[in-house]
Amino acid sequence: MSSEPPSFPAAASDSDLASIEVRRARREDIRAIVELIADDEISALREDLSDPLPEPYLEAFAQIEADPRTELLVAVHDKQVLATLQITYLPGLSRMGSERAQIEAVRVARDTRGMGLGTHLLTEAIERAKARGCGLVQLTSDARRKDAQRFYQQLGFAETHVGMRLVLGPQ
Amino acid sequence: MSSEPPSFPAAASDSDLASIEVRRARREDIRAIVELIADDEISALREDLSDPLPEPYLEAFAQIEADPRTELLVAVHDKQVLATLQITYLPGLSRMGSERAQIEAVRVARDTRGMGLGTHLLTEAIERAKARGCGLVQLTSDARRKDAQRFYQQLGFAETHVGMRLVLGPQ
Repeated sequence: MSSEPPSFPAAASDSDLASIEVRRARREDIRAIVELIADDEISALREDLSDPLPEPYLEAFAQIEADPRTELLVAVHDKQVLATLQITYLPGLSRMGSERAQIEAVRVARDTRGMGLGTHLLTEAIERAKARGCGLVQLTSDARRKDAQRFYQQLGFAETHVGMRLVLGPQ
Repeated sequence: MSSEPPSFPAAASDSDLASIEVRRARREDIRAIVELIADDEISALREDLSDPLPEPYLEAFAQIEADPRTELLVAVHDKQVLATLQITYLPGLSRMGSERAQIEAVRVARDTRGMGLGTHLLTEAIERAKARGCGLVQLTSDARRKDAQRFYQQLGFAETHVGMRLVLGPQ
């Protein structure tokens, strides 16, 4: 995260959450999003927060913007990006040809966790998937992130699958 | 599956596998693919194999064809679709902005399982992901499908994540 601590109050009320804006990410949010992604013991070594940000991040953002099936969302308070996630609406023949919403890269700023920001952002993602007519919302969570799994269960997600990965590039 | 049993020999050799064509699915393959998807104790009740096939399947296929990030693949022998899977190349900022290949709807015809067809098709998918520069290949497998998980492990996949789902429509 940036060196300035978020101004979001430590004990958030409903009116605080109402002041949170959830919107599509813009080009000027890229650094804040990558900082959120990197601010994590599991992901930190995979990112490069050089200034300026390495070009691949900007190219990836352009790809996200160009993909009509992908939405990169941010939750913003007082001009600070406090949480992020990405949705991709996967087409497919399964389940009578219904789309499924694939959620990736969920992050909530460390200092604002437990205040309902993540719930607010996930709820928005679920509403978008419903509005689009998706048959389900799916995500994977690193098996070590037990708190994250409890959080998703509270939102109604069931732990039905095993998530498997084959890393092709560097870890 | 169709009422005609596949002509693929029960003990496949390398030359048999060489006679398998892996290619993008075509409109005339849709029924065979949906039959493969439905020929499964877990998925059967979710599909509708009426003749003609319900319109949503045709619409979903059109969506797949229109999506430059999705490839629906089939393994074909003697004009019969014996296996299928779908790849979607997800854009994203994580891992230095690298794409990840999301695999969905993997099916191998019941009578041809254990002959190497699934390995052949998955290997092709992994090669496509590598050629595209993806950082990883990911998939989820229903926790009840222990054989499937062993199969993916043999291909190099690690069981690192928990797969969670929130069903929005009918089960």
